[in-house]
Amino acid sequence: MLIVMHHNATIDQIQAVEQAISALGLLAQPIPGGQRTAIGVLGNRGYVDDATIRDLPGVLEIIHVSKPYKMVSRDFHPASTVVKVGSVVVGDGCPPVVMAGPCSIESEIQMLESARLVKSAGAHILRGGAFKPRTGPHSFQGLGAEGLKYLQTAGREVDLPVVTEVMRIEQLDLACRYADLLQIGARNMQNFDLLKEVGQLRCPVLLKRGMSATIEEFLAAAEYIVAEGNDQVILCERGIRTFETATRNTLDLSVVPLVKSLSHLPIIVDPSHATGRRTLVPVMSRAALVAGAHGLMIEVHPSPDQALCDGAQSLTGQGFALLMKDLAYLQDCLAKLHGPVAGEPA
Amino acid sequence: MLIVMHHNATIDQIQAVEQAISALGLLAQPIPGGQRTAIGVLGNRGYVDDATIRDLPGVLEIIHVSKPYKMVSRDFHPASTVVKVGSVVVGDGCPPVVMAGPCSIESEIQMLESARLVKSAGAHILRGGAFKPRTGPHSFQGLGAEGLKYLQTAGREVDLPVVTEVMRIEQLDLACRYADLLQIGARNMQNFDLLKEVGQLRCPVLLKRGMSATIEEFLAAAEYIVAEGNDQVILCERGIRTFETATRNTLDLSVVPLVKSLSHLPIIVDPSHATGRRTLVPVMSRAALVAGAHGLMIEVHPSPDQALCDGAQSLTGQGFALLMKDLAYLQDCLAKLHGPVAGEPA
Amino acid sequence: MLIVMHHNATIDQIQAVEQAISALGLLAQPIPGGQRTAIGVLGNRGYVDDATIRDLPGVLEIIHVSKPYKMVSRDFHPASTVVKVGSVVVGDGCPPVVMAGPCSIESEIQMLESARLVKSAGAHILRGGAFKPRTGPHSFQGLGAEGLKYLQTAGREVDLPVVTEVMRIEQLDLACRYADLLQIGARNMQNFDLLKEVGQLRCPVLLKRGMSATIEEFLAAAEYIVAEGNDQVILCERGIRTFETATRNTLDLSVVPLVKSLSHLPIIVDPSHATGRRTLVPVMSRAALVAGAHGLMIEVHPSPDQALCDGAQSLTGQGFALLMKDLAYLQDCLAKLHGPVAGEPA
Amino acid sequence: MLIVMHHNATIDQIQAVEQAISALGLLAQPIPGGQRTAIGVLGNRGYVDDATIRDLPGVLEIIHVSKPYKMVSRDFHPASTVVKVGSVVVGDGCPPVVMAGPCSIESEIQMLESARLVKSAGAHILRGGAFKPRTGPHSFQGLGAEGLKYLQTAGREVDLPVVTEVMRIEQLDLACRYADLLQIGARNMQNFDLLKEVGQLRCPVLLKRGMSATIEEFLAAAEYIVAEGNDQVILCERGIRTFETATRNTLDLSVVPLVKSLSHLPIIVDPSHATGRRTLVPVMSRAALVAGAHGLMIEVHPSPDQALCDGAQSLTGQGFALLMKDLAYLQDCLAKLHGPVAGEPA
Repeated sequence: MLIVMHHNATIDQIQAVEQAISALGLLAQPIPGGQRTAIGVLGNRGYVDDATIRDLPGVLEIIHVSKPYKMVSRDFHPASTVVKVGSVVVGDGCPPVVMAGPCSIESEIQMLESARLVKSAGAHILRGGAFKPRTGPHSFQGLGAEGLKYLQTAGREVDLPVVTEVMRIEQLDLACRYADLLQIGARNMQNFDLLKEVGQLRCPVLLKRGMSATIEEFLAAAEYIVAEGNDQVILCERGIRTFETATRNTLDLSVVPLVKSLSHLPIIVDPSHATGRRTLVPVMSRAALVAGAHGLMIEVHPSPDQALCDGAQSLTGQGFALLMKDLAYLQDCLAKLHGPVAGEPA
Repeated sequence: MLIVMHHNATIDQIQAVEQAISALGLLAQPIPGGQRTAIGVLGNRGYVDDATIRDLPGVLEIIHVSKPYKMVSRDFHPASTVVKVGSVVVGDGCPPVVMAGPCSIESEIQMLESARLVKSAGAHILRGGAFKPRTGPHSFQGLGAEGLKYLQTAGREVDLPVVTEVMRIEQLDLACRYADLLQIGARNMQNFDLLKEVGQLRCPVLLKRGMSATIEEFLAAAEYIVAEGNDQVILCERGIRTFETATRNTLDLSVVPLVKSLSHLPIIVDPSHATGRRTLVPVMSRAALVAGAHGLMIEVHPSPDQALCDGAQSLTGQGFALLMKDLAYLQDCLAKLHGPVAGEPA
Repeated sequence: MLIVMHHNATIDQIQAVEQAISALGLLAQPIPGGQRTAIGVLGNRGYVDDATIRDLPGVLEIIHVSKPYKMVSRDFHPASTVVKVGSVVVGDGCPPVVMAGPCSIESEIQMLESARLVKSAGAHILRGGAFKPRTGPHSFQGLGAEGLKYLQTAGREVDLPVVTEVMRIEQLDLACRYADLLQIGARNMQNFDLLKEVGQLRCPVLLKRGMSATIEEFLAAAEYIVAEGNDQVILCERGIRTFETATRNTLDLSVVPLVKSLSHLPIIVDPSHATGRRTLVPVMSRAALVAGAHGLMIEVHPSPDQALCDGAQSLTGQGFALLMKDLAYLQDCLAKLHGPVAGEPA
Repeated sequence: MLIVMHHNATIDQIQAVEQAISALGLLAQPIPGGQRTAIGVLGNRGYVDDATIRDLPGVLEIIHVSKPYKMVSRDFHPASTVVKVGSVVVGDGCPPVVMAGPCSIESEIQMLESARLVKSAGAHILRGGAFKPRTGPHSFQGLGAEGLKYLQTAGREVDLPVVTEVMRIEQLDLACRYADLLQIGARNMQNFDLLKEVGQLRCPVLLKRGMSATIEEFLAAAEYIVAEGNDQVILCERGIRTFETATRNTLDLSVVPLVKSLSHLPIIVDPSHATGRRTLVPVMSRAALVAGAHGLMIEVHPSPDQALCDGAQSLTGQGFALLMKDLAYLQDCLAKLHGPVAGEPA
């Protein structure tokens, strides 16, 4: 931590800050500059709460050097984490993993059809939502427990592990029984109680980035889960909210190499929610793969035009099959690149 | 709903859209223009899901005219709602309500001191957090149930109703027992299960705007609560996330008159979280009052320098007392204005 | 400047950074911490370009303590600047100044009518645009030089100084001849050549904040003008671009007290462009005044329904007259407040 | 254009709106709905200014269907535009074009070295900045006319066309003499006078997206140039400003396929400015290529550690050579994809 003093801070003010630092059991090291004094703080073993210092007279600004996360950082834990979802592995050194299926579970037959579609195209994990977060209360809210059974049945039928979103702690027992991977959605990225609770499970977790979460907050949210003992966390970029309204969200692909350099956790990309437009999904899926994503989450529906949710961003079975061919081909191509991968000096 | 067709959409494509509209039980009315055709949709009684239409060939864009909320809109419910919190009333025609107290409940003595401070300065509701949402897992997380008791005790001691934040459904029983007003924080504005659950209580609810929530989403979140039967909802603007980092968030005061024109629910402002800086709180409190806020939520701490949470944005007792005097004075002044209040044509 | 090293940076890497700092003629002071080393940079007399250091091996992050502006900062120049526009003064200690008139100059008669309207209501400066920046090339672009003459004539007729926007260097001679205050619009806030050029004039300048400019960039833009010798600069907050689309921009009123604490230059507010809605202009004007603005810029049109530009956000003469009464009354009220004004400790 | 009336708008109010539409020479077509009436506007040949309607009593909202651009839209001009820069072609059907070189022209020798580096690696166009827009006035501002000569000399030496940024109209003559492609930077995207002026030249133009410009505004800015007669415009995505500060800007790659579907103009990507970090440039360059970019603009410096500007985001010659190999290889791979390219239905 660095405390920057005002240009004209008095010696008394500087000493008061030094005392406040000492009171926290830390060391203060003044750095007199040409124009002002800064005070370095030494001896802390992590993020320091600056509440008792921030507002002392003469303090201009406080700069935090330590991050609000540590266990998920590559700085402290260099080896890459590989997450296991059933028999599928996700992370550095593993082939990219594709999670596919409909936004909402609508019926047993729809899930079965979807499962066969995505399996035959080569997907690795089946997705389907039983509990749906919707902006307004008058939209379709999901089939709930019934839906989870359909999802599990469909997954077993085609021999794919399944992923589904949980929105509240009470759903965890049920979801753990039926699903192989639990998704925490963007709206719940800072639902800290939910994070702590899944941190105590043995089930792997897919954590989506919040709509307006910085990378630092994203990793701090993952830290909540890992700090409780569960290091089986896959991160997922799904677009952030910006001023641009031509796409549903703004897909922030740079976050993929950046997170790979900052953290040892795997990161995948959801181009369906990020763009909100079916025609953009294949091209952005390919771009995400090339940006270094460990996998993709893609909405596929047997009849997108009749989907109860997000049909406009769902691929048809045929579109998805073509995309899978291209992803496999591109993956081969990537193995032959000469340049540095993300995060290494060029 | 209006469907805008491509410049060169064919007659067949236009007819296919008309059929899809009919299939939803609605009427299609083509509007041929100089450059392209648009198709109006009639007969809907609310927001229409466009999934089956959005992606038909020739469709350029779909424009929704209906909003994802209805019960909270002034359009359908012109009379202003007044919310009762204990003996305090909040809304149009009521004097502005000030909710004040520390960010976190830290001890019985700290809550008592805070309660006496804010009561003697003239506050109407006592605030204090027992469950704290913190970005990283290594920060102080609140006293929990023990804290709620301190809050209630302090409130009774000074005869003020109390407000506290709830973060999960399991906390509701406890919180209802000890608090007079339940706060849903910004991070939980789209925790829809929590919203539905408080919608079934008889307890009034303070709903904070999400960090990146549009006004439309904010009102749709309130609709979740009201749709379940609880219309005792107070909205709270607490700053939104933008590119600007000089303040903790960007206080969006225009939302106050705008929400007052769009909805019948009362709206208050939290300048402490919005600005994150103690020195900006008094001036922005006064500005919020003049912008038409039905009340304010302000952090006050007997010793901000030693606060466990958000000390930098907390007023001292003395600072708060001065502010309360100014607010009372300003409120008198506002009664003598000539011009139109918010939402009326100038 | 502070250079934060990686957790596992080697001694050689740390020494290489120290050498690079020396090569810039500056002093390096290592600050060994519990988890990593940081290196303070001493001896600089302003902002240091970090290009030669940023990318050295082992460097995690570089934190700048110095700001990209100095002459406009209150830290280095505590006395408030008062700007003179004709016989009108703007700044600390002066009554708030209202600049009013139509968005576009449309005709001689329209300018005269506008001038009489705003003068009789009590405005202090007459505004009118001769050169109009419009998003698309097919919209009305302004009357140019002819318009400037109408503006000057109207201003003289009612004895008010006039302000108008300049968009290119070639317009400066003309604009200086006809106007008393030159406006640099939001789109040109970082048109650095234009800034330097007006910095060499003796004419006062109204500098609007860019749509996505941070406060730091806003003040650095003002520094361009002041650094050339012209300290007669008035800043103007006019709303920033955020994800919210319900208002044209998001009015960032906190910037008013914040800029007043960071800079000695006066700052006014333009609620017309910020909100884009006539009904919000009076209420946000009053809030801006209470937030400490040194003045307001308000669009007024004799017949807003027939305006060639931004009619929807223009007040009628009657609406403006009511607002002026309220502003005068509120200004009296503000003189009697007890609490601290912006920027002082509470 | 569609005018949405209030739920309880009166018949008189609806008729007044119809009359205002007629007064514009357009046709009004009321669309009575279950809850409110909307009024379609027919007969317009482009964007309609809504100033005379927007604020009539009973009007809730106005929705524009026409866009503020037309000549650059693919809807009205389906054939793709190919831009010629010297002997290099940019656009659909052409191999991707790489523009590379230093941010700033620093000396004759530095430009020559840079030119040889990028030529030998296979770049197609040489870049170099003679006029530099810098946030603060105390940073290096460029060599000006002298720099342009160095740039031209270096380009001729290695037989590459050259591109450079222009910031003001007075620089155009000079820049046209020395450069083959004129760049309009992000800060000047809405410097409309400059746009009009380059629209009257025969020289091709590289138009960078403004920091907070929507796609619609970006295309409307291009329309300014094309409307003056110059259709040789290359668009360039260079990152937008969001709340995320971990990268310099947020690279919005979805804009590439989206712009390709909306416009016939070519679009390239600048990953150097978008990310601001050297280590991210190669990976994001590859991703941009796969997203469909018609080319890339990349900062390369013989000694990035000693660059006067943006060294932290510049590749070394060696890093750039590796990247060029990978881009060429990837380009071959892309030719063998099965799936639809951007903008086509999946």
